[in-house]
Amino acid sequence: MKLYTTKSSGNGYKVALLLSMLNRQYETVLVDFPGGEHKRESFTALNPRSQVPVLEDAGRVIWDSSACLAYLARKYGGEQWLPSEPGQMAEVLQWVALALNEIQFGLQYARGIVRGIRSGHYDECAALGRKGLDVLEGRLRGNDWLALGRPTIADIACYPYTARAPEGNVSLEPYPKVQAWLQRVEALPGYFKVG
Amino acid sequence: MKLYTTKSSGNGYKVALLLSMLNRQYETVLVDFPGGEHKRESFTALNPRSQVPVLEDAGRVIWDSSACLAYLARKYGGEQWLPSEPGQMAEVLQWVALALNEIQFGLQYARGIVRGIRSGHYDECAALGRKGLDVLEGRLRGNDWLALGRPTIADIACYPYTARAPEGNVSLEPYPKVQAWLQRVEALPGYFKVG
Repeated sequence: MKLYTTKSSGNGYKVALLLSMLNRQYETVLVDFPGGEHKRESFTALNPRSQVPVLEDAGRVIWDSSACLAYLARKYGGEQWLPSEPGQMAEVLQWVALALNEIQFGLQYARGIVRGIRSGHYDECAALGRKGLDVLEGRLRGNDWLALGRPTIADIACYPYTARAPEGNVSLEPYPKVQAWLQRVEALPGYFKVG
Repeated sequence: MKLYTTKSSGNGYKVALLLSMLNRQYETVLVDFPGGEHKRESFTALNPRSQVPVLEDAGRVIWDSSACLAYLARKYGGEQWLPSEPGQMAEVLQWVALALNEIQFGLQYARGIVRGIRSGHYDECAALGRKGLDVLEGRLRGNDWLALGRPTIADIACYPYTARAPEGNVSLEPYPKVQAWLQRVEALPGYFKVG
């Protein structure tokens, strides 16, 4: 199995985290973004969006972090990380959708603007990110995990850019339940801090 | 089964389309956005994001269109719309992710700005939407459907706001394969035009 990513990609990190928690061996292929490798045909043939992560496994090529997480969970995670029962699967996937929306377009992009790796409108990204944090905080009042009362890919999808929110000048101080949940994720077997 | 939506929501329409294609009976509950019903506790108890669609079925409440589509596909669609095999499931879900990203934050929001129902930065939304259309066009060169060579929730998720792109002043003329694919979706049994 190969994981195409970069050293700093939080979306690649999601997939690497789940691989580690599933105790799967894989090869990391670092894609040279500053050198424009992601725009070359050798890479766009894998992912027409020119983004990481991309997962290659058993002849399959999968792009988008959410699809990679679902693939690994269903293929190697039994019923733990993304169960097959439709209602339970949907409960997990709605939080994965929050990661693709409020967390990516909010927290991830606010951080990218602050760090000078992305242009955009900081206040709008930060506001969207805080909306996402409000929803997370509400959910985590009385729930240890985002879905099903146990760790799932919902938590893995939402974790990296929530944890990094302060790097985008979005404080987690108003969100004590979110902070406690981040610590629970960090205590899971197989957890590792990004590069 | 109840579908909470509005008359004009393209995201609610996705779920209604799949329900129709699956030939399922359900009750439509129109949420009064102008009247602020989506911000009242009776609704935020169903969906803390204050958005439609929300699906209520057999005691379950599911928010986010992508999670609703996955739920219906797995519960009522056999292996047709979202198969259980991990690689096939991932192939479908990566296009659902495109719907949540380039299509929503690009085409949907560009249209919303043009129609005066959303504030934002038109040029950036239109550019992101065109990136999504480029990816769709590339995929549909040589493929009739987005995933697995047959209709799946990938097509349902991407259809509504791609079809409406011209209402956001994003022309589909440069995208003949996308246009032909829209027509294929519109020819599926159970298809209906929105409101």
